[in-house]
Amino acid sequence: MSLRIAEIFGPTIQGEGPLIGEPTVFVRAGGCDYRCLWCDSLHAVESRYRHEWLPMEADAIMERIEALSGGRPLLVSISGGNPAIQDFGPLIALGRQKGYRFACETQGTIAPLWFADLDMLVLSPKPPSSGMETDWSAFEACIAAKGAVPAAMKIVIFDEADLAFARLAAERYPDLPLFLQPGNGETDPAIPVDLDALAGRLSWLVAQTVGKGWLRPRILPQLHVIVWGNQRGV
Amino acid sequence: MSLRIAEIFGPTIQGEGPLIGEPTVFVRAGGCDYRCLWCDSLHAVESRYRHEWLPMEADAIMERIEALSGGRPLLVSISGGNPAIQDFGPLIALGRQKGYRFACETQGTIAPLWFADLDMLVLSPKPPSSGMETDWSAFEACIAAKGAVPAAMKIVIFDEADLAFARLAAERYPDLPLFLQPGNGETDPAIPVDLDALAGRLSWLVAQTVGKGWLRPRILPQLHVIVWGNQRGV
Repeated sequence: MSLRIAEIFGPTIQGEGPLIGEPTVFVRAGGCDYRCLWCDSLHAVESRYRHEWLPMEADAIMERIEALSGGRPLLVSISGGNPAIQDFGPLIALGRQKGYRFACETQGTIAPLWFADLDMLVLSPKPPSSGMETDWSAFEACIAAKGAVPAAMKIVIFDEADLAFARLAAERYPDLPLFLQPGNGETDPAIPVDLDALAGRLSWLVAQTVGKGWLRPRILPQLHVIVWGNQRGV
Repeated sequence: MSLRIAEIFGPTIQGEGPLIGEPTVFVRAGGCDYRCLWCDSLHAVESRYRHEWLPMEADAIMERIEALSGGRPLLVSISGGNPAIQDFGPLIALGRQKGYRFACETQGTIAPLWFADLDMLVLSPKPPSSGMETDWSAFEACIAAKGAVPAAMKIVIFDEADLAFARLAAERYPDLPLFLQPGNGETDPAIPVDLDALAGRLSWLVAQTVGKGWLRPRILPQLHVIVWGNQRGV
């Protein structure tokens, strides 16, 4: 069965979350059950881009990953869109045979069996600023599906309401490593990123968490935005 | 026995290396057996700053850490200078009793017994651009001293010669997680940091490693420089 793939690119570095800085090839799935107001990957979400999503079999995707990485096994980051809609099990099985590792990033609404075959599952519940509502029982099904696979929770923070949401999520899941990152309101690839504004948002988030005695989350920026702005494919 | 302490500050986030983004209080030891050409902490290294280093007993340091953290246990990062010159064993014992965790950053020239009491040892051998020479047998004594404590290697990269050094260090220690970070040539706190130049150095380092098929190191910037420039105490 073929998968809808918005883009495959790399190797580059993972720009955010628990694997920040790690060399990786990204496989971005097309299609999403969410429409976050500030989505930075609409080209993998909105159906008007559907004709740009290539139908690819697992072995064709793996071939592309191997070509990009020169056959050197590395981390493959499956993102989207919401990749959990599709069956990445065959790709993961194929890649792991060859020594590749797999991480997946998802909002936690759909819980496929292949989560249990990953090396890392990054769950990103969406805070109020996204305009989405979290279904915590669906989220918990994802945690159940992953089994013993290491997982982390990553939450984008734009404002105080998002922080309150993160606090509740943190309390719900005391055992999940927690990563917060400042929201990026500028997602137009044509507009150069304002690094001072980005530094300011990071500073604000540190002040609102660590500065107020909340010491659990790790606070990280999006490295790829610092280095490449909002360009695609890097 | 009292310790010479250049500064204690936080909580802030760890800006670099394996614990990047983690809330931490920094304890910066005064005194160093190295004089790296590009040192960004000369106030903890050069003897002309010696009169600014407070002699403090372990319990006084712990009191200060607890006051800064509001008594909430968190990660304490012992840095310098080279903290391995002094005996941080009593501080670590005191802090761990209260739930604090301890990381230490050192170049790997001196191997005290208390390395084995840490939660994380970050070894930063200095590349040629530093003007220093690495004594690998002393470095290995540090690895031996830490015992089962998790460790990582972090190397600052200014140029091609530094990259060649990092490649050799990586080969010597195949089991140590490896982090590379671009060098920061601007360390004057009075001069605002040039974020575009910083992004450019990060981009260069990604191109020189991942871009050339070297997929082992994680590539990370110094977050504190992005957020606070070269200010001290943050």
